[in-house]
Amino acid sequence: MTLKKWKVLASKIVFENPWIRVRQDKVKLPDGTVRKDYFVRETKRVVYAFALTEDNKVILNNQYKHGVADFLKEIPAGIVEDGERPEAAIKRELLEETGYAPKRLKLLAQFYGDPTGSNTRIWCYLATGCKKVAEQQTNPTEIIELEFVTIAKLKQYLKQGKINSQGTLAAILHGLAAIGEL
Amino acid sequence: MTLKKWKVLASKIVFENPWIRVRQDKVKLPDGTVRKDYFVRETKRVVYAFALTEDNKVILNNQYKHGVADFLKEIPAGIVEDGERPEAAIKRELLEETGYAPKRLKLLAQFYGDPTGSNTRIWCYLATGCKKVAEQQTNPTEIIELEFVTIAKLKQYLKQGKINSQGTLAAILHGLAAIGEL
Repeated sequence: MTLKKWKVLASKIVFENPWIRVRQDKVKLPDGTVRKDYFVRETKRVVYAFALTEDNKVILNNQYKHGVADFLKEIPAGIVEDGERPEAAIKRELLEETGYAPKRLKLLAQFYGDPTGSNTRIWCYLATGCKKVAEQQTNPTEIIELEFVTIAKLKQYLKQGKINSQGTLAAILHGLAAIGEL
Repeated sequence: MTLKKWKVLASKIVFENPWIRVRQDKVKLPDGTVRKDYFVRETKRVVYAFALTEDNKVILNNQYKHGVADFLKEIPAGIVEDGERPEAAIKRELLEETGYAPKRLKLLAQFYGDPTGSNTRIWCYLATGCKKVAEQQTNPTEIIELEFVTIAKLKQYLKQGKINSQGTLAAILHGLAAIGEL
């Protein structure tokens, strides 16, 4: 058995606003059958930072997320603006959300947010030597309480089920691997 | 500073088909400003399995994912059907996708798929002692090549960037923690 790509026979945008865009594809599957209704959400690129301060604390954002109407502990993250490079985007997001700037920035991994239903591509960085250089620049939809935790505390949070955002969990896996904790 | 929930002033479904449903909320933010256009995708619940065979190999699904038009290595996963319990759903998905049944099933964690933009809730299980009891029951949109890897090989794949699905990365983090590898 060999895996094959699907062939796109037709494609149209069926729902679109500045926040969500949905594409409908008519596809031909490997067995020859045609399906006229495969939906893919098209999104901007996303950046994450597993960010460590100068004294090796992990920076967590405590924030209300309306998708789930809950308060979550997440890593700094955001959207890559049009024309922006992912590395510039993560520096900007870190600065806006936390007021911190990294001494070093290293790309840890690229992965997909929801490969079944969206084309979201994520760039996940390790930011080390982070230092406070400014105040947070948050806005009414993005009020963030910062928390600084040791690696031991982060692992404790994980095992206690206190980190409930899939993207943050994925970034922590790569972050821990990068600092030799895996 | 204390984090506050947003107040929903009005809510309506603005796009819906059997695969995607988008809700538009009119919300009042903590500072009192009103935003009339916050979009949330409403989805079914999702289940994941970090599944180990009787000889402690991790079960990976190699599969084409049309959202990103790429071939991915993912863990067994699926949707919880209406009226189904998550534990029944993951047993069903494991059996359909792999033909394997676990000796033990343990809930490792519950988390959110994309808490900013969707209400997706995920139940992540550890399935151990998995044994082949049937043939795969795949369909034209879901052709899966199984791969069985040691924990050492899984970590190698991670570090080589060969595991590119955010959900699978999150499940691996909890799976490794559960078997004492974190």
